[in-house]
Amino acid sequence: MKQKNKRGFASDNNPAVHPKILQAIIDASHGHTIAYGDDIYTHQAIRKIEEHFGENIAVYFVFNGTAANVLGLKALTNSFNSIICAETAHINVDECGAPERFTGCKLLSVPTSNGKLTIEKIKYHMHGFDFEHHSQPKVISITQATELGTVYTPDEIKAITDYAHKYDMFVHVDGARICNAAASLNLSLKEITTDVGIDILSFGGTKNGMMFGEAIIFFDKKLSENFKYIRKQGMQLASKMRFIAVQFIAMLQNELWLENACHANKMAKLLADEVAKIPQIKITQKVETNGIFAIIPKKCIEPLQNEFFFYIWDENKSEVRWMTSYDTIEEDIFDFVKLLKKRLK
Amino acid sequence: MKQKNKRGFASDNNPAVHPKILQAIIDASHGHTIAYGDDIYTHQAIRKIEEHFGENIAVYFVFNGTAANVLGLKALTNSFNSIICAETAHINVDECGAPERFTGCKLLSVPTSNGKLTIEKIKYHMHGFDFEHHSQPKVISITQATELGTVYTPDEIKAITDYAHKYDMFVHVDGARICNAAASLNLSLKEITTDVGIDILSFGGTKNGMMFGEAIIFFDKKLSENFKYIRKQGMQLASKMRFIAVQFIAMLQNELWLENACHANKMAKLLADEVAKIPQIKITQKVETNGIFAIIPKKCIEPLQNEFFFYIWDENKSEVRWMTSYDTIEEDIFDFVKLLKKRLK
Amino acid sequence: MKQKNKRGFASDNNPAVHPKILQAIIDASHGHTIAYGDDIYTHQAIRKIEEHFGENIAVYFVFNGTAANVLGLKALTNSFNSIICAETAHINVDECGAPERFTGCKLLSVPTSNGKLTIEKIKYHMHGFDFEHHSQPKVISITQATELGTVYTPDEIKAITDYAHKYDMFVHVDGARICNAAASLNLSLKEITTDVGIDILSFGGTKNGMMFGEAIIFFDKKLSENFKYIRKQGMQLASKMRFIAVQFIAMLQNELWLENACHANKMAKLLADEVAKIPQIKITQKVETNGIFAIIPKKCIEPLQNEFFFYIWDENKSEVRWMTSYDTIEEDIFDFVKLLKKRLK
Amino acid sequence: MKQKNKRGFASDNNPAVHPKILQAIIDASHGHTIAYGDDIYTHQAIRKIEEHFGENIAVYFVFNGTAANVLGLKALTNSFNSIICAETAHINVDECGAPERFTGCKLLSVPTSNGKLTIEKIKYHMHGFDFEHHSQPKVISITQATELGTVYTPDEIKAITDYAHKYDMFVHVDGARICNAAASLNLSLKEITTDVGIDILSFGGTKNGMMFGEAIIFFDKKLSENFKYIRKQGMQLASKMRFIAVQFIAMLQNELWLENACHANKMAKLLADEVAKIPQIKITQKVETNGIFAIIPKKCIEPLQNEFFFYIWDENKSEVRWMTSYDTIEEDIFDFVKLLKKRLK
Repeated sequence: MKQKNKRGFASDNNPAVHPKILQAIIDASHGHTIAYGDDIYTHQAIRKIEEHFGENIAVYFVFNGTAANVLGLKALTNSFNSIICAETAHINVDECGAPERFTGCKLLSVPTSNGKLTIEKIKYHMHGFDFEHHSQPKVISITQATELGTVYTPDEIKAITDYAHKYDMFVHVDGARICNAAASLNLSLKEITTDVGIDILSFGGTKNGMMFGEAIIFFDKKLSENFKYIRKQGMQLASKMRFIAVQFIAMLQNELWLENACHANKMAKLLADEVAKIPQIKITQKVETNGIFAIIPKKCIEPLQNEFFFYIWDENKSEVRWMTSYDTIEEDIFDFVKLLKKRLK
Repeated sequence: MKQKNKRGFASDNNPAVHPKILQAIIDASHGHTIAYGDDIYTHQAIRKIEEHFGENIAVYFVFNGTAANVLGLKALTNSFNSIICAETAHINVDECGAPERFTGCKLLSVPTSNGKLTIEKIKYHMHGFDFEHHSQPKVISITQATELGTVYTPDEIKAITDYAHKYDMFVHVDGARICNAAASLNLSLKEITTDVGIDILSFGGTKNGMMFGEAIIFFDKKLSENFKYIRKQGMQLASKMRFIAVQFIAMLQNELWLENACHANKMAKLLADEVAKIPQIKITQKVETNGIFAIIPKKCIEPLQNEFFFYIWDENKSEVRWMTSYDTIEEDIFDFVKLLKKRLK
Repeated sequence: MKQKNKRGFASDNNPAVHPKILQAIIDASHGHTIAYGDDIYTHQAIRKIEEHFGENIAVYFVFNGTAANVLGLKALTNSFNSIICAETAHINVDECGAPERFTGCKLLSVPTSNGKLTIEKIKYHMHGFDFEHHSQPKVISITQATELGTVYTPDEIKAITDYAHKYDMFVHVDGARICNAAASLNLSLKEITTDVGIDILSFGGTKNGMMFGEAIIFFDKKLSENFKYIRKQGMQLASKMRFIAVQFIAMLQNELWLENACHANKMAKLLADEVAKIPQIKITQKVETNGIFAIIPKKCIEPLQNEFFFYIWDENKSEVRWMTSYDTIEEDIFDFVKLLKKRLK
Repeated sequence: MKQKNKRGFASDNNPAVHPKILQAIIDASHGHTIAYGDDIYTHQAIRKIEEHFGENIAVYFVFNGTAANVLGLKALTNSFNSIICAETAHINVDECGAPERFTGCKLLSVPTSNGKLTIEKIKYHMHGFDFEHHSQPKVISITQATELGTVYTPDEIKAITDYAHKYDMFVHVDGARICNAAASLNLSLKEITTDVGIDILSFGGTKNGMMFGEAIIFFDKKLSENFKYIRKQGMQLASKMRFIAVQFIAMLQNELWLENACHANKMAKLLADEVAKIPQIKITQKVETNGIFAIIPKKCIEPLQNEFFFYIWDENKSEVRWMTSYDTIEEDIFDFVKLLKKRLK
């Protein structure tokens, strides 16, 4: 029987708020602060983000990741544009068509084995320019780390941004797990974003220990010119903005973002290492961040889920997904692996 | 010079989180909970809301008030419909066109002296039915309490819902301050919503002491049939939903909602009573909830704002708005009135 | 009993195709021509339009007037903008919300007595600039001639375009009856458009003798930059474009546009003069083009409609609308007036 | 040098209007007719269409094929739905994203070798039902004849409609060339639409000899309930509707539709037969209607185009498309083949 609030491997959306972030919220909750973001907390949070990404950026907070992606893409496109992405991209499969609905654009997806786009794959959709019958490609959207837990190297991103800019296109990064990617690469946030030419980033906080709130970062301020209206009309302007802002401040102070991400990645590595020892199980993707994808015998899925909840990724292949998070502890891993072995007998 | 986090009369969006609500958040922040609302906190919150509004309802949480209004209206309309509202309605003037953008509908507004629609005013837009050249009227949207602090009596609402239903139309209530209205009328939430025939309510929490989060209540479950998709595609599905849910639980437990609203209303009454004694000031709207609208000498506006921030409502008329909130204290009122008198000399 | 294809005063949309325009269609209907507008007929038609409006323009053909208005407005706006217009504007009342649906913008209308905007009236909606909660005013849309048959003088238009440009806004003209206006003012098309600073014109043909087809004229080519995509995505790219093009060529050759419009206006004048002699009838708008608005005794409306069909404009006031057209003949007028007098007895 | 209005093989959109259809237009062009479709021509045209498709249908005219597809799909969907189609579908590649823009839906495409969907291919996208994170599949859209000139047999369509209806989904047919398909199958229009369970048809006229105008046919009247508003708001309500209507009357009288389609198909067959004799040319798709797809030596493409214009289909493969039409004559074929042989030497 499932225990209330028991830690599992279902999703990095399931954990509570990190204690330091919760404390920041508590500390900010007194007295009156001007609503809608014209307050010192928000200004501080933006400055903090500038410290990590460089100064020539524009930063806007929204409530969640879908909004960060969709409103960011809206800022880069006209409705007659198309957006190229991996078939597995969150914007393509997990946002209920919000990108199409809100931007009016066509999404052009490409199958990949590991969730990563390459120039070769992108090229499939690079045609019809200037031809009014076709949606005009304008954005390449990549996810870092990908929905399959894999990571783009800075060089791989640079290749894509160079290619995009040559065609007067933009590169959007869905960074719901950008912290995990940076931790995995042992690089700063700036080195895998600003320095490799991306145009806009959905900077995720919720999966790394926040309660709610994401930041949209424009690496060219001009692109954000109208964004305050897009955000408001997009129903994403928070009245009590300070409570998003202070979470980002806490996250970016004393490298909490990195600590959380490193820990989650490390736990995934540990789980992968333990699981690799079990011959009946086949890990299907490189474990570069905090997700493990594995094919396991069908019969043991449900019993396992009843004790440690997780999701099936591909029913046909009997492939499951296990996510670790900032609050996973070693004991969870060992308990789970023990259980796994027991169920496999 | 403005003091950091000093209480003022600018907006009921400016206060911190009520301590009991903050405590509920803290209490819920441990362990893992399934994301996106399929969790016990959310189920409990919905049951709590049913206790107050009756059982034949459907409840959905979203992040903010604009979304509650816009997504609710979307659930009731096709893009070729029109929505009738007061000229001062939040949906008409303060949502940057989000209702038009997201529903595709035309908003038909009517000037009012006090923010309240009447059948007579509504009739102005009741034509063109079945005529394909005209947007088809489908929703009457009222705000309770209104943006001008006034309140509809249950009879007034009933008259509107009866009228609407006769034409196969719906009544939407923007209830960002529904608690203040109930408190003012000394009625339960049910008596001014379910019992008077409204179809859908944006049930506001943020202005009454919450951190973020609003509920959309459908009084006919059938109307909510597709709403889970509308919410997701509308970018308003919270991953860590429990943190919205527990705020509503706390708000509806031990009548905290009423306590907060009564207090805010009482403070407004006190401020109005004190201000009424000053001959140079003219209160322009009935003070029925937590807002006071007053014409004051132009010269004293800015000096006052510097000490207790508030907004100008109508520059031409030198009309200002003062909002009280759950955390206003009597001393604030007396200090402010004292200052006001001083500035008027 | 109504006679098939009998001429009446219902609408200038009801006549057949002018014989010269029909002939142009017949003449063009042989052999193959490249589809979608890259053909010599279309190029010729554009050159013809340039002869009348000046050379620094961009011209695009669409199927109908609603599309001309809506797609034109789309080219000038972002979804968070608002469009100011008269309450009686076609875009406001007769396009089933297409402008809101397709542009995402809010329409801000102003009541007028004669269908004409003035700076004073426009000012009512000129606020909230730079304030993200409000739709941002971006276009002033006027109709020339208005839906009430009245006409803006060049000076009146110039005052509006100067005002708009001062605020970095655009002026759109719904010119479904621009030819009637030019004829009324005894001015060229250029003198009431290009020369008075308008930014974009819906140049109507259908009401002046064409079968279908309207032109969107951009007076600043830069504004049309993306328009070919907007038109295609807006479902308004005609495959056999030559059949719109040759109608415009015929219309603009040998001043057929002017001849038709002058005739319609003259017939309206004649009808107005005759009707003015009848004491029970009150003409309610200046008869400046081809429409007459009149209050007539309620009892005689239906019998009259049975013989010469026309529409009631305002049921409450017993106000009707009579439209003349390029094919109205004097006999129609005299027959109708005779009948009118008979029914009034 | 290209001869003005010379017949070629570029597109069946390039021919003039069929003389009988043009005559119908001429005959209808006299006197006044009520605008917007409430006229006897339109009623007659609808009755004519009922004669061919059965009586339980609803029929609406629009200007062009993109609109017929997009507005029809809009009538069947909510914005959170998805539409499954072949990768080569006109709605997927040739409408500049209009389907996404106007319906808000996601298009889910599948690669095919011959432009035809099969259950097996459709299944790839049949998942995520009831899961709010995913767009909900609601429509399967097929093209008959396909963009590659191939034809679905009635059994193939029936299999798809049965499958769709089992999942409470609809089948839409883009019938821009439905007449060519019926001619090819030697079946009536009814046998390949009404009788095999399709829900909505874009019934194309323009490619089969009309000037402009398409019909949207609903095979269940209930589905068309709101369609008059969708059409108007979709900017596709023609004022002088009679001129679309009479074209359909002429087309469906004395089987002109069939005569034209048979002829075009026959000419394609002739061209294919002649071309098949040339060893350097490889026909890549079955020639079932009026299109021929062939791989030809790259060097001879441009010289050929200069005399008989046609389009390259796939630059990489050196694949071209030749379309015949109702007005192609045998001499065109023989001239072209002669030229082809000459260029191949």
